[in-house]
Parts: sequence; C-alpha cells; structure tokens
Amino acid sequence: MNNKKIWVVGIGPGSEKDMTLRAHEVLTECDYICGYTVYCDLVRPLFPDKEYISTPMTGEEKRVELAFEKADEGNEVAMICSGDAGVYGMAGLVYEIGRDYPEVEIEVIPGVTAALSGAALLGAPLIHDFCLISLSDRLTPIELIEKRLRAAASADMVIVIYNPESRGRSGYLAKACDILLETLPPDRICGIARNIGRDGENKIVMKLDELRNAQADMFCTVFVGNSSTKNINEVMVTERGYKSER
Amino acid sequence: MNNKKIWVVGIGPGSEKDMTLRAHEVLTECDYICGYTVYCDLVRPLFPDKEYISTPMTGEEKRVELAFEKADEGNEVAMICSGDAGVYGMAGLVYEIGRDYPEVEIEVIPGVTAALSGAALLGAPLIHDFCLISLSDRLTPIELIEKRLRAAASADMVIVIYNPESRGRSGYLAKACDILLETLPPDRICGIARNIGRDGENKIVMKLDELRNAQADMFCTVFVGNSSTKNINEVMVTERGYKSER
Repeated sequence: MNNKKIWVVGIGPGSEKDMTLRAHEVLTECDYICGYTVYCDLVRPLFPDKEYISTPMTGEEKRVELAFEKADEGNEVAMICSGDAGVYGMAGLVYEIGRDYPEVEIEVIPGVTAALSGAALLGAPLIHDFCLISLSDRLTPIELIEKRLRAAASADMVIVIYNPESRGRSGYLAKACDILLETLPPDRICGIARNIGRDGENKIVMKLDELRNAQADMFCTVFVGNSSTKNINEVMVTERGYKSER
Repeated sequence: MNNKKIWVVGIGPGSEKDMTLRAHEVLTECDYICGYTVYCDLVRPLFPDKEYISTPMTGEEKRVELAFEKADEGNEVAMICSGDAGVYGMAGLVYEIGRDYPEVEIEVIPGVTAALSGAALLGAPLIHDFCLISLSDRLTPIELIEKRLRAAASADMVIVIYNPESRGRSGYLAKACDILLETLPPDRICGIARNIGRDGENKIVMKLDELRNAQADMFCTVFVGNSSTKNINEVMVTERGYKSER
C-alpha cells in the first residue's frame, strides 16, 4: 500500500491527555512525525519508535517541503503543531506548498489552542464573542496589529493575545495595553495563563493597568475581558450576554 | 471518600475521537453526566452506565443548579458542552452559580470548539488573527452584534460566525453579510461547515455575495476570510501574514 498523506495535527497545549483521541491515533499509526524541534521533543517520549523530522522555529517552509518529500515517497507523515493545527498553525502552509504535490492527500486534525486551554485555566473568560490577536510583527505590519486591538476594544470583545513578547520583541504587551487603555478602563479584568499543560503552569487574574506592567514571554497567553467580565475569587468569568438576570 | 466536584467538559464537535483523552477519562470516572438533552443523547452510547441529568436548551440555569445539588451531596458531576466548555459554553454559569456552593470544586476541561473543527474541515482559514461572533440576540443587543461585525471587517480579521440562523431567527446571516459588504468586496472568500463530526458533515467554499444568499441553520458554522484568504482547489486558506513570499 502506498499512502501519500500528510496529517496536520494539533497536539494541544502539551500533555498527552490534552490531545484528542484522533490526534493520538494518527501519531500512533503514521510513519513519520515532523515538527518544530521543541514539539518533537515533547511527543518523542510518547511515540518513541517513530522517525522524526524536526527543524528550528523559523524553518517552517523547509519543514513542510521535507514532509512532502517523505509523503510523496509513499509515507504517512504527521506534521505536529502546538495547540491547534490551524490557529497560527502549519495547516495553511501545508495546503499552499501542497499545490506542488498533487498526489499527496492532506487532512487537518484540530486540537485545543491556547485560547481554550488558557481560558479553562483562568476560569471562563471566553463565554462571549472574542478575538485572537498575535502581537508578533514578523509577518504582519505593526500598524495593522494596533488597528485590530483598537477595533476589538471599541466593540467590547474579549481579546486573547498570542505571542505577547519574545526575546526579540520586548515592550510589546505594554504598548498593546496602552492602546487598549485609550478606550478601556484601567480596572478591566484581565488574566495571564503561563506554561499551559506543562511544568510551571500557572495563572493570574489582574486588572488592565496591572497587565500593562506585568512580565510576559512567549509561554504566556493573555486575556483581556469585556465590560461584563468579573473576577470571582481569582477566577476570570465573562457573562453570557448583556440581558442576564444574574 | 466525598468528592464534591463539577467538571465542565468540552466534548468537541460530536464523535468520540474528537474528545481529548482527558475529557474521555473524566466522563469514564464521574458519577453523573449532566447536559442539554441532545448532547446527553450523543454520549450515552459511549458511557451507557452513567446516570444522566438532562434539561432542554433554554434550561441552563436549572441544569447547573441540578448539577450542583448532586455534587454537593458528594458526587463528581460532569457538565458536558458541545465543542469547548468555555466558548459560548457552560463554564461561566457554573462559576457564577458556584458562589452559592463554596464546598464544590470546579474544573474546566477544554475541547475543540466549532471554529477549530470547522476550520479543519474547510482547510486553513484561521491561520491569522480572527474573531468569533455569535448572531444570537437572545442575550445580546443586535446593535452590539452589528458593531462587532463592522469592527472585525474594518480591521481585516477573519470572522467566524456562530449561530448564524435558527428556527426563530431567519434572515440573520443575510443581514450580517449585508453589513460586511459595506466594507468587504463581494468576492471575499467564505465557507460554511455543516454538521461537523456528525452524520451529514459537509463543507462548501464560496464568495461573500454567495454566502449572502446561502442556506444556513443552527448546525452551521460560517467563516469569512480576510484579504489574504484564498480558495485553493475548494480549500479555504488564509496566509500566515502579509509579508510572505508565496
């Protein structure tokens, strides 16, 4: 049998239990597991007998090319992504590069992205409309990121911030908070989820003016509540709507 | 042992394989499974020996009260939600009502919400910043929903629409499209995912002016692309950013 196939698999926040049964099954049955070095190291103890293809963080196009070469030889390749396969994940690049490999079938297996796992850790911040905004300006103009923050704040949406800071980008979260503080009150309820599903997992609920001065890094996911978000005993809870009796 | 506990469990789009291993474990080990009648019917064949507490769609507060009563007697109760436990899910109401039951521990188990499972079905629409907006005006003023649609469109965010229509709300999706068409071009790439993970699952990629006239119901999740979203062989793909070489 000659299965030319790439599975793009969201493995969830980190621990085996946070994978879906389907993701687990694909990783059990595939020939190769391909991914960013850190994620390969995360799943290698669970699937020690697989062959691994790993490339560093910025080697995404190369990684996808390698995966297609292996698949095109008649293999089933699982391209793993942290969280979901589609949310800032590899699924898009796989479909784009897949145009050069028409015989290779592609299937996406969704997973629990950090917005959902971080929300579960913080309580219930995402009960109502929300948006996800990445502060990484590697591929996106900073002006557009700032416009999105203003748009979300103006429409009272809960905001989940991915990639708040990294080694090369310091001060981005403070700048984002300054933009939000143009329209949102300083006591708006916010939260940070850190190292979700991994060692050192923790969460903290705070106010927007405290978030402005908080420490964050690439292992943090940041939540900014809407006007109905409350702090109930250090749990971040957004109301279901604006017509509730509670 | 006397475990007074409520787990709020996202069961994913529908099939057993789309649950996380953790969700499956909680449903295997709990004493009671509590939920909307339709979701209880969905998991009953998988966990036939459990005791079930089900209430109809609009009985959410009653359902949560019943769950806390059972938990407070010393039981572990799993409150199940379709998709994720937090995204328009029950986690918020559980924490709110939980203030009246201080001895009952609450833990949220995230799951794959329809934005993620629908995106996987359609391809890769969520590769960049996006927002989730529900068109249900049962608890939210329609003016605010419309404001959010305009804000998202103005900032070139991918938009995922939950609850586009229901028996009591027809014409809502067409109205939403009219609002989006104020600023977005009629050939903006869009998609509908229907019956995700269940019988009759299907997806269709189309343009915004076609979406305006499309049939939708409460089993549909709707995706409106951003300016870099493409239709690649009937797969909906959003680019990673605006500086890509591809």
